[in-house]
Amino acid sequence: MAAYDDLMAFQRETEALGQVAGRLGWDQETMMPEGATEQRAEEHGAMANVLHGRRVDPRIGEWLAAADVTGEVAAANVRHIRRSYERTMKVPAALAAELAKTTSRAHRIWAQARSDEDVAAFLPILKRVVELRREEAAAVAGDADPYDALLDDYEPGATGAALAAMFDALRPRLVALRAAILDKPAPMALDRVFDEAGQLALSSKLAEAFGYDVTNGRIDKAVHPFSSGSGLDVRITTRTAARDPFNCFYSTIHEVGHACYEQNIDRDYLLTPLGAGVSMGVHESQSRIYENQLGRSEAFCGWLYGQMRDAFGDFGVPDEAAFYGCVNRVSDGFIRTEADEVQYNLHVLLRFDLERALMSGDLAVDDLEAAWNDRFAADFGFAVDKPSNGVLQDVHWSEGLFGYFPTYTLGNVYAGCLHESLRGAVPGLDDDLARGETSAATGWLRENVQRHGGLYEPLDVIARATGQVPTEGPLLDYLEAKFSGIYGV
Amino acid sequence: MAAYDDLMAFQRETEALGQVAGRLGWDQETMMPEGATEQRAEEHGAMANVLHGRRVDPRIGEWLAAADVTGEVAAANVRHIRRSYERTMKVPAALAAELAKTTSRAHRIWAQARSDEDVAAFLPILKRVVELRREEAAAVAGDADPYDALLDDYEPGATGAALAAMFDALRPRLVALRAAILDKPAPMALDRVFDEAGQLALSSKLAEAFGYDVTNGRIDKAVHPFSSGSGLDVRITTRTAARDPFNCFYSTIHEVGHACYEQNIDRDYLLTPLGAGVSMGVHESQSRIYENQLGRSEAFCGWLYGQMRDAFGDFGVPDEAAFYGCVNRVSDGFIRTEADEVQYNLHVLLRFDLERALMSGDLAVDDLEAAWNDRFAADFGFAVDKPSNGVLQDVHWSEGLFGYFPTYTLGNVYAGCLHESLRGAVPGLDDDLARGETSAATGWLRENVQRHGGLYEPLDVIARATGQVPTEGPLLDYLEAKFSGIYGV
Repeated sequence: MAAYDDLMAFQRETEALGQVAGRLGWDQETMMPEGATEQRAEEHGAMANVLHGRRVDPRIGEWLAAADVTGEVAAANVRHIRRSYERTMKVPAALAAELAKTTSRAHRIWAQARSDEDVAAFLPILKRVVELRREEAAAVAGDADPYDALLDDYEPGATGAALAAMFDALRPRLVALRAAILDKPAPMALDRVFDEAGQLALSSKLAEAFGYDVTNGRIDKAVHPFSSGSGLDVRITTRTAARDPFNCFYSTIHEVGHACYEQNIDRDYLLTPLGAGVSMGVHESQSRIYENQLGRSEAFCGWLYGQMRDAFGDFGVPDEAAFYGCVNRVSDGFIRTEADEVQYNLHVLLRFDLERALMSGDLAVDDLEAAWNDRFAADFGFAVDKPSNGVLQDVHWSEGLFGYFPTYTLGNVYAGCLHESLRGAVPGLDDDLARGETSAATGWLRENVQRHGGLYEPLDVIARATGQVPTEGPLLDYLEAKFSGIYGV
Repeated sequence: MAAYDDLMAFQRETEALGQVAGRLGWDQETMMPEGATEQRAEEHGAMANVLHGRRVDPRIGEWLAAADVTGEVAAANVRHIRRSYERTMKVPAALAAELAKTTSRAHRIWAQARSDEDVAAFLPILKRVVELRREEAAAVAGDADPYDALLDDYEPGATGAALAAMFDALRPRLVALRAAILDKPAPMALDRVFDEAGQLALSSKLAEAFGYDVTNGRIDKAVHPFSSGSGLDVRITTRTAARDPFNCFYSTIHEVGHACYEQNIDRDYLLTPLGAGVSMGVHESQSRIYENQLGRSEAFCGWLYGQMRDAFGDFGVPDEAAFYGCVNRVSDGFIRTEADEVQYNLHVLLRFDLERALMSGDLAVDDLEAAWNDRFAADFGFAVDKPSNGVLQDVHWSEGLFGYFPTYTLGNVYAGCLHESLRGAVPGLDDDLARGETSAATGWLRENVQRHGGLYEPLDVIARATGQVPTEGPLLDYLEAKFSGIYGV
């Protein structure tokens, strides 16, 4: 076991350094003085170089070759380290360096292009990013589908073809559900100003209600809410909007879902490859089930309505039923991150199909905007009015993140499956939620999903928890049932 | 210049990583959730290993051998890097590792022993720390004075003998001044509760008044005030005490002195060996001159009195004269960190003489407590009542910090010299200070001391600014004049 022990000691230090780098990112979004940007870039670069140097350390290959392990945990550790090492070693150092440099530049150009509504300014650098990512994918995958090689970084084991089959089944029913809903009168919307202190106080109460532990975390404000860190230090951020407290409350519950996943991983896995969420999709399943299936349920909305009345007085919504409609209001919009449960996945499916075509070469970067706008009009029934509401709205592609988008919808699909099983396992769930009580539900998720960390492959995590291979069926059934209840469709 | 360029590129990344490690320490004292301690220790350890690995990288030796530099800046960079590299390489890795392990353990044992008032519990590990530091000093210094080798880490160029000569001249006049003052009736003391929000607001105003720039920094609360970081991100902390707002205000001004030194270094030196304060003594000279010679001056106290009246109303001090006495009140006390300008250096001189004797072998660790108590009684005229008020009060020795204490008094001596020159250069200083205006004074310090960073040796920095070799005379003259004015001695 000497080789395995050496490997794990080395890995442990790498994991600790990864946590430090992550916390530096947290600091940048929450605490960093504005004048420190230039220095911080060098600090990030130095940490990235240290981490990269450790990832390509040839001793890893020697230890892996010599490691003779027994037991599920050790085997999983070796599997994670081997996958990461082999992948990293397949990508030439010059390509990795050029990707880092190009995406950093592309990110800046994208931000300017979005602000200028100027797609043409972004396309040349995007072409280069696409080229480099295709090169990288080819280096990793050989003759296999390059998109799968990228996807594998975020969702080990997933393939573009399997996701496409699942998403093609989702799309028509979501398009139909959306159209039917938007034919009906909309529920009322909030129309008040809600003071920031009240929003933050209730947001903290919600975090606590969903089991977030501030002994091993903290909540701060940031422009874009996020969760950060693993193990004993898992921090979240939130934001407030004067007229839209749901933005604050539901982004908090969403990040709490991510953070609780990290906080609830078996402590024995601390600072090992098993000590973090196993994939983007499984991570998103936790944030989404906390946010939507639990947090936007009729029962929980009833409790939240009372909390908001306590915090803000009469805020213009007459009763729990109206409040439930208000929370789950579906309306036209261009922006993925602002979309409701019904439309969100349509935004993702659009991106998935386009980025897969970009990577296969079936779609040229020059034709991307037209393809985006056509697809948007087809699924949403109205036209994109400007690039910042269309092809320039998301940061991902500028950062080279191809293969990342589908994990959002995969997370929703997983959340649908988990929710179905959870309802069976916790029959009194609605009675709990109506009292703001989530411990039976979050306890079931902790026991069946979260505590395992990286022990099992992503698909296996969900299959073990639900007893079956995940499909899109439960999510669709849940959405149709829920919104037919609210909208009478 | 290729070797020099390579050396500097490598050093720049090391400096950036040092900033990251420092910010991790800042986070621990201000933001870290309490449950994260164990993980954070591993994160710190991992960063320390990375930094140590870079400090002993043999390429540094090769680059240094090949570097053929011209110009003051390049020569100074090489001088810093060479000094650090040669010193590090002289200490065997096993000794460095055992020192790190032992001082970490000693720190925990000291904290428990202090809390238990149990000197005997601390002595065995302190003996080991002393042994190891003597070994290290011998490795670095060969046959030279081992204390000088330790001192050199904090105050390059200083020697125990030179400091002893200076401090032996300070001691009798300080003892006499202290005794004369304490024979007189004391000025009034504050006797109110001052609300925390008011203290923090005025504390921020003071930071701004002394030129601290929050564009490149921030102010947070911490148990022990400190300043942290260099270059574009220099943060300070403060604390409040309900009945002692001076604790908040003057610790803020003190840390602002440290922070402004870092913020005002020539931007060309960013992330190079010249981009940080040159020594502990010069650093302390800046914090002390901001805090004492400027902040506790009669003129500035007049302005502060008005600020406190505005913030807290009538707080029981009738006029500016009474307030000036109140700020500069001298009273008996055991604790170095709570001491006034007159007594502070006596606390330091005691530690300097004892630690020098420990390092030379003239004093055995077993005899340390008795030696402390005898010396305290001799200089302060009353007996130490318990170890936490005596030999166990400071953290330094448990962490192996021998040679650090004298830099506090050296800083005061330097502040005395700088103040004398500053008064000559800014004749209208008291008029400025009476309006809470410090820019002429802090501008003179920036121009003559701070902007140089590590360009000159510590003694040269002060000599260039004042036009003469620093001595204890100006500090003593200043203290005697100031306190004879307040106390009529």
